Amino acid sequence: MKNKYWSAEIIAIGTEILLGDIVNTNASHIARGLAALGIDMFHQQVVGDNPARVLDAFELAFSRADIVITTGGLGPTGDDLSKEMGAQYFGLPMEENQEARRNIEDRLTKMGRQITPNNWKQAMLPQGAIPLQNAHGTAPGFILRKEDQILIMLPGPPSEMRPMFDDQVCPYLRTLSPEVMISRTLHLCGIGESALEHRLHERMERMTNPTLAPYAKTGMVDLRITAKAASEEEALEMIRPEEEALRKELGTLIYGADEDTLESVVGALLIHKKISISAAESCTGGLFSGQLINYNGISEVYKAGFITYSNEAKEQFLGVPHETLVQYGAVSQQTAKAMAEGAAKAAGTDASVAITGIAGPGGGTPEKPVGLIYVGVHVRGRTEVLELHLSGDRQENRRRTVIQALNKLRLMLLEEPEV
Amino acid sequence: MKNKYWSAEIIAIGTEILLGDIVNTNASHIARGLAALGIDMFHQQVVGDNPARVLDAFELAFSRADIVITTGGLGPTGDDLSKEMGAQYFGLPMEENQEARRNIEDRLTKMGRQITPNNWKQAMLPQGAIPLQNAHGTAPGFILRKEDQILIMLPGPPSEMRPMFDDQVCPYLRTLSPEVMISRTLHLCGIGESALEHRLHERMERMTNPTLAPYAKTGMVDLRITAKAASEEEALEMIRPEEEALRKELGTLIYGADEDTLESVVGALLIHKKISISAAESCTGGLFSGQLINYNGISEVYKAGFITYSNEAKEQFLGVPHETLVQYGAVSQQTAKAMAEGAAKAAGTDASVAITGIAGPGGGTPEKPVGLIYVGVHVRGRTEVLELHLSGDRQENRRRTVIQALNKLRLMLLEEPEV
Repeated sequence: MKNKYWSAEIIAIGTEILLGDIVNTNASHIARGLAALGIDMFHQQVVGDNPARVLDAFELAFSRADIVITTGGLGPTGDDLSKEMGAQYFGLPMEENQEARRNIEDRLTKMGRQITPNNWKQAMLPQGAIPLQNAHGTAPGFILRKEDQILIMLPGPPSEMRPMFDDQVCPYLRTLSPEVMISRTLHLCGIGESALEHRLHERMERMTNPTLAPYAKTGMVDLRITAKAASEEEALEMIRPEEEALRKELGTLIYGADEDTLESVVGALLIHKKISISAAESCTGGLFSGQLINYNGISEVYKAGFITYSNEAKEQFLGVPHETLVQYGAVSQQTAKAMAEGAAKAAGTDASVAITGIAGPGGGTPEKPVGLIYVGVHVRGRTEVLELHLSGDRQENRRRTVIQALNKLRLMLLEEPEV
Repeated sequence: MKNKYWSAEIIAIGTEILLGDIVNTNASHIARGLAALGIDMFHQQVVGDNPARVLDAFELAFSRADIVITTGGLGPTGDDLSKEMGAQYFGLPMEENQEARRNIEDRLTKMGRQITPNNWKQAMLPQGAIPLQNAHGTAPGFILRKEDQILIMLPGPPSEMRPMFDDQVCPYLRTLSPEVMISRTLHLCGIGESALEHRLHERMERMTNPTLAPYAKTGMVDLRITAKAASEEEALEMIRPEEEALRKELGTLIYGADEDTLESVVGALLIHKKISISAAESCTGGLFSGQLINYNGISEVYKAGFITYSNEAKEQFLGVPHETLVQYGAVSQQTAKAMAEGAAKAAGTDASVAITGIAGPGGGTPEKPVGLIYVGVHVRGRTEVLELHLSGDRQENRRRTVIQALNKLRLMLLEEPEV
């Protein structure tokens, strides 16, 4: 098995995906994990809860990949039949797995739930399968290997699938191959994908190992550097000079790498520079604070937020002058500035972010169209206001505004001295 | 073509999906649209930006479906080659489409962007293709029909793909078939999928047209009633008595139907019953308000929100007594109640929702473990507190809390008299 290149394929099983009732987030989670392990993937499939089609999907997947990972169809309801198809594909009988049965019993007893016959069905696994414990549900997953074909079946709910994949499947897969593919992803905000590709075109053409590739996200772009090598250390050694060159070229457009998020970078900057913060939001209605507070540890610096949707609230809680609202309107540079400064004063913080705008779909006028949004950022006595013109729908405008606000705050924090 | 049953298959083209860098939300959007049109779908594929594999995917898809809809690979960057593969599959040359060229020029000029050679590449389409305008980007989509095979290629970014699919592709598809499949989805909160299926088992077995099927969502369950008929009116006529029976059986567990969301239902109740509202959030940090404010029109009743992350902020802005915080702690029934009542008083609203808890991963103790969250709901002088014990990660706990809070508010609002 040494030096074998493993390839994998994901099959999501579930009519609810074909009907569009749920988004297949499992596939991207698994795909990220496989990419990090250097396991190639060229195809994914989605198929309904239909025995013949599930079996066909297995045939097709194993005709082009060594490892087939399925999600869904392990639950207790009547249409869940993936496991039986897995057994059938390998010509194996189903049998009750004692370890799986104990886990189900333990979990349901602990939760004080009644055990129904449906629950016991979940302990049935193909003969010879290695059961995977489900810490967040009753349906166990399993790994079934026959020579060079490996079938891994995981439950559908992401809260059950993710920990099972991360904690049990990844360690198993890691034992398969001596070669690694390591990626380092740089996160950028403030430049579009096309402009970035234009700027890095020659470099991307030139690089083969490591490779360099851009990926557009909502309001952001990722740059992924990927190296294949005999060891993780060697791969990292190959990535380092490329990253340094990119950082030199792109400067503060790069806000972080890998697990970093805009909020984790901003949160860490606030904590490191001992800058307390508050927020005042109108059209984003709490989403800015909600995202910043994703960062565990933010309580050290985040003091308070105000969702001042009405003009009265802007006056009452932020002290925005009545005249400012009358003269310039709630959606104006002047109001954004007054909101930011007012929030900092009311909450007694060094910094604050204020957002006021027209997210749509209603509320626009010729002078102030939908998508016009002001972001005021106040840091230690200095206030700057960003004017945004967005063209998405209500949700997208609000999401992009939060990203722009976090990024503007980041850039201003970078200029602040260490204490 | 009369009475032909059309089937469709989606192919998402993009290495970034295989690498897990983006989630394939396009597929679920298209799938929902197709389901609503009564077009069957049995498979979806994901394939990388590789010419041979894209061509194979077309072959496979057209071997089992009449309509193949692709997303991705239409952009200006070098690895985008889906269109050429589409032309090749049908044996057609590429040619510059004048309408598409004009749209690209108009859009870029309006945005004040420079036009690069890459942009012009986007005006090249397979001969005979019907171009689809892109209102949110430069890459046009297209529809290409040859006898009973229809290829529809759409751009990858959801903000471009969605309006193109909704406004141009759906009307086209609607002309194909005289039969309709109509679904009505009831949304439930407060019961799990297993319990619901157990309760409705006999009914689900009995029903064939319409059919009845449950779908689990985070913190919620959907029940979908689907009827096939010669006309929309006839299908709706078949669905109505089933819906009435379900509403009778399930009562307030059903919070809405179809496009309803928890926040739209709560927002409409608040407006209808003339109940103004404020919010005070600790661990959810603005997500409750952020979700409620998704509802366009909420400004009529939503006055202000407070994100009181620190104890000081809870005292200062909500008037939570210092002794309450000391005696019971910030995460307690007493504090949740005081926060809710304090927010209503500070903002001068009839109702308010307060959330305080330990979302994790840190901050738990043996007495107050991670996942312990209190939701205080105050409506016109009455305050009730919900105690939650959640077991997800930080994000999931926060998301589930917001759902529970909205649902508790809904149930209390239902009890309020009309004015």
